[in-house]
Amino acid sequence: MTGLATKKSWSPDILIDDGAELTIAANQKGKRYTEKIIGACEETTTGVTRLRAMEKEGRLRFPVISVNDALTKFLFDSRYGTGQSALEGIMRATNLLLAGRSVVVAGFGWVGRGVALRAKGMGSRVIVTEVDPVRALEALMEGFDVMPTGNTSIITTAHMSLMKDKAILCNVGHYDVEVSVKDLEKIAVKRRKVRPEVTEYRLKSGRRLYLLSEGRLVNLAAADGHPAEVMDMSFAGQALSAEYLLRQGSKLESKLIRVPEELDLQIARWRLEAFGKRIDSLTKGQQKYARSWQL
Amino acid sequence: MTGLATKKSWSPDILIDDGAELTIAANQKGKRYTEKIIGACEETTTGVTRLRAMEKEGRLRFPVISVNDALTKFLFDSRYGTGQSALEGIMRATNLLLAGRSVVVAGFGWVGRGVALRAKGMGSRVIVTEVDPVRALEALMEGFDVMPTGNTSIITTAHMSLMKDKAILCNVGHYDVEVSVKDLEKIAVKRRKVRPEVTEYRLKSGRRLYLLSEGRLVNLAAADGHPAEVMDMSFAGQALSAEYLLRQGSKLESKLIRVPEELDLQIARWRLEAFGKRIDSLTKGQQKYARSWQL
Amino acid sequence: MTGLATKKSWSPDILIDDGAELTIAANQKGKRYTEKIIGACEETTTGVTRLRAMEKEGRLRFPVISVNDALTKFLFDSRYGTGQSALEGIMRATNLLLAGRSVVVAGFGWVGRGVALRAKGMGSRVIVTEVDPVRALEALMEGFDVMPTGNTSIITTAHMSLMKDKAILCNVGHYDVEVSVKDLEKIAVKRRKVRPEVTEYRLKSGRRLYLLSEGRLVNLAAADGHPAEVMDMSFAGQALSAEYLLRQGSKLESKLIRVPEELDLQIARWRLEAFGKRIDSLTKGQQKYARSWQL
Amino acid sequence: MTGLATKKSWSPDILIDDGAELTIAANQKGKRYTEKIIGACEETTTGVTRLRAMEKEGRLRFPVISVNDALTKFLFDSRYGTGQSALEGIMRATNLLLAGRSVVVAGFGWVGRGVALRAKGMGSRVIVTEVDPVRALEALMEGFDVMPTGNTSIITTAHMSLMKDKAILCNVGHYDVEVSVKDLEKIAVKRRKVRPEVTEYRLKSGRRLYLLSEGRLVNLAAADGHPAEVMDMSFAGQALSAEYLLRQGSKLESKLIRVPEELDLQIARWRLEAFGKRIDSLTKGQQKYARSWQL
Repeated sequence: MTGLATKKSWSPDILIDDGAELTIAANQKGKRYTEKIIGACEETTTGVTRLRAMEKEGRLRFPVISVNDALTKFLFDSRYGTGQSALEGIMRATNLLLAGRSVVVAGFGWVGRGVALRAKGMGSRVIVTEVDPVRALEALMEGFDVMPTGNTSIITTAHMSLMKDKAILCNVGHYDVEVSVKDLEKIAVKRRKVRPEVTEYRLKSGRRLYLLSEGRLVNLAAADGHPAEVMDMSFAGQALSAEYLLRQGSKLESKLIRVPEELDLQIARWRLEAFGKRIDSLTKGQQKYARSWQL
Repeated sequence: MTGLATKKSWSPDILIDDGAELTIAANQKGKRYTEKIIGACEETTTGVTRLRAMEKEGRLRFPVISVNDALTKFLFDSRYGTGQSALEGIMRATNLLLAGRSVVVAGFGWVGRGVALRAKGMGSRVIVTEVDPVRALEALMEGFDVMPTGNTSIITTAHMSLMKDKAILCNVGHYDVEVSVKDLEKIAVKRRKVRPEVTEYRLKSGRRLYLLSEGRLVNLAAADGHPAEVMDMSFAGQALSAEYLLRQGSKLESKLIRVPEELDLQIARWRLEAFGKRIDSLTKGQQKYARSWQL
Repeated sequence: MTGLATKKSWSPDILIDDGAELTIAANQKGKRYTEKIIGACEETTTGVTRLRAMEKEGRLRFPVISVNDALTKFLFDSRYGTGQSALEGIMRATNLLLAGRSVVVAGFGWVGRGVALRAKGMGSRVIVTEVDPVRALEALMEGFDVMPTGNTSIITTAHMSLMKDKAILCNVGHYDVEVSVKDLEKIAVKRRKVRPEVTEYRLKSGRRLYLLSEGRLVNLAAADGHPAEVMDMSFAGQALSAEYLLRQGSKLESKLIRVPEELDLQIARWRLEAFGKRIDSLTKGQQKYARSWQL
Repeated sequence: MTGLATKKSWSPDILIDDGAELTIAANQKGKRYTEKIIGACEETTTGVTRLRAMEKEGRLRFPVISVNDALTKFLFDSRYGTGQSALEGIMRATNLLLAGRSVVVAGFGWVGRGVALRAKGMGSRVIVTEVDPVRALEALMEGFDVMPTGNTSIITTAHMSLMKDKAILCNVGHYDVEVSVKDLEKIAVKRRKVRPEVTEYRLKSGRRLYLLSEGRLVNLAAADGHPAEVMDMSFAGQALSAEYLLRQGSKLESKLIRVPEELDLQIARWRLEAFGKRIDSLTKGQQKYARSWQL
């Protein structure tokens, strides 16, 4: 994804990116390299964040479609994709029964909602920690318990020293930063691998904490990541966005733009069809109302 | 709520409205009646829609806070409030067992989500009909079935003539228009009241359809409407908005404005406290991130 | 149900009883009154318990079918019937939101399972108290929390003095004995009716406890009792048992006997049909296996 | 487990068996081999069935405790153990999303209940097939759909030829007999392995069926079998039964006997303790009531 063809003999028309490395590199190289580029599509939150900063500074030289912000991506990928794969990762890593366990989910965003929903579905009791009172109230109304942690950044020494013996720690958020492995190493008196994806840390108090997959994303490290259907949807977003750039790119400003709603709806329609499900369609007049899905 | 004091000796400073009748009347009366009005707070979707039209025409003479659009209103009122009270209404009206029944929910907006969630919780199998493929896909991922109806406006003759014997019809959406009672009257050969809130319509085919509460909102007609806690939240939105108008009204434009986020969060915090729940709070630096709750 | 015809001109052949008052009275009156009685059918646990005592003493003069012990009664009536109607009773009595609340269910028998299941379905978090460790473990595996109360008989002063302000007390077990109203009266400094089915007891500490329906069965007192379909199943048990007595009564011993399995299965088949559901049937050879449903 | 020491110098006192091979062999060898054997403990349904036949023929020479019939085994092992591990096996084998899928569960015994419960928890819609109307009705009341298959023995040609394109077949019941692989081989025109545990069978019609783990138990073949805690409970049953034999064996008849209730309750108590949960205990007088857990 890094490295950009420099010879006139070969150069890309459209960039399909995941992390924005390529898109940023192209923009930095200057006009000579970007004049033939119609546009780019970016898959990730991180990438979009970086490109947005670039856009603000007026340094974006071609349009970029933020595939990450498609409804058919974030409503499904984070919630149902991570929800399932995180649970599978925990089961594979530990071979423990989820029923009857208490699961603490830090944050009730889309990932947190998915993990909480599926953990409940496997018979766990779920406690949600949040800083946003609206989200916390939603969690409560969905039947989860809500508690404070006293510290909102990441799982640190402060939390670890209060955990019960044999508590299991894992991360399904960002790359190995949500559980502070450094803190765990610091307070542990002994460390040993007890299963391929499980490391036991023994504390001075004699209590043992188990870290899954060295704090890396447990759904990627201990399972196979998102189920295929979820990736299908994200990739469909990339493909349709690329086609859209090809057709409409010349009319687009050099800005970050959302996936056109019609493409988003098209992906959802195909996904429903693949499930063998049909839905009603609206008359033209009714379509305006349907678009206001958010409320 | 209608009728506006006309004597100088008494006139309102702030209007707290539900349906916008009063607010519209005041605006129509002209400047003399509105110059002392700091602003209004409107509770309902219908009211907000009417006021938005008025705003577009430049005829709004004072600021109006759209209490209806507070997160602490629409995320809770429609979903959990109607979800529970609609089910209670159906149980009270029919004295039937919900477990084992098929429940068809037309539309997967906030009300539809609430009703589907609680019907599932009572042991029913839920089928969702939708025109929006994204919402339909969400319904499917939550474990509901999804089917087309062939007609998206309201429940009409077309649907009724396909319904199973003893199907029950009820409305928890808008005032008596979602189930076409006129159509039901037209195709029925006999009608009789079988319980206080249940009317039996016998069709030519011999099949019987049961209409609850004459097609009016079943949670209001057959039960007590929203639970108290849900009304508390909406009324807190009104009260805080009124106070906000009092303090800040003079600086506000004569437009529809959202409930300030801080008030919205405050209501959620109080509701959590009333449930005996505490959550974490953020440092100033972290607060910016928390605000982007939608994603 | 009490009072027994004494004149020769009229006397019953079969008793259909609910509480065993009539059956016990008949047996006590002596042979002259019972010689024409083919048998009785008893609906309730209480009745069956009393008749079993009578049977042990050799004082039962005719066969009694324990309708109460039919699978189609206790698996459905207590679990799904009470589960739904108890929740409905609480909603009607209080008009409070169940979502987000903690519900403590004392005992995880059939009634407790039903109430816990439906409370969870309405968005409550459920805590089960039990004395039987196997049942407690089942509760935990179903996703409920499990806690001790320190006192296993009924809800007494010991529990009440620890309850949170505004705790709500209700009974869906036996007639007004599971919550000790006497204890509540004793420790309260003030009592007032706040809604038709809600009495507030103010304690010395200032805390308030709310008793529903004066401690009587909340599904009967504040709602309409079991849904119609559940009563159908119990009454079908009575009717088929009466018919069975008529056909086979002369061959039966004067003992308590179970509802013949074939009748029990027949009731379930009819109930499924009424729901519009068909199932597979077994060959004769396969039937033996199917009968061992318990494991 | 096979092979029996024949030298006087070494011989077992107690047999801990899984499948009854050893126990049957010992009994068949004759008195000389069994006179020192205090008794045996048998883990499985299959083993118990074979031993029961032996008992009927009067050929059992020492007491055998049926560990399989302990409440702490069959209520947990089949339901929650298989429920979780079967789902994990399917996820690992296929990497597909369970949310939004229809899952057909053949039979609503303990295994079927567990699988249905957990599939629902992962967002699937569940259809149960049953021959027992009482069980079918329970399934319906739990919110599952119920349908007939037209054939009750196993999944055969009759079913396969009606299945949708891309249907997935798997077995969590008995060793490779519940899905007739022979039938699948017969009607397929092409077979290929598409993932390590997934075989695609292409039918003449062009439709494709996917068989997991060659029809063997998917929780063992594609995942790690029962979670550790579930095995703990079964092994605790073996260990306590062995100890019981040591203490009481001389007084026991040469029959199949149930795990003494007190041991069963003890296992549940320990399991609760390991979960950090305490429950109430009864007075001696109250214990009699608690024992009647079944109703």
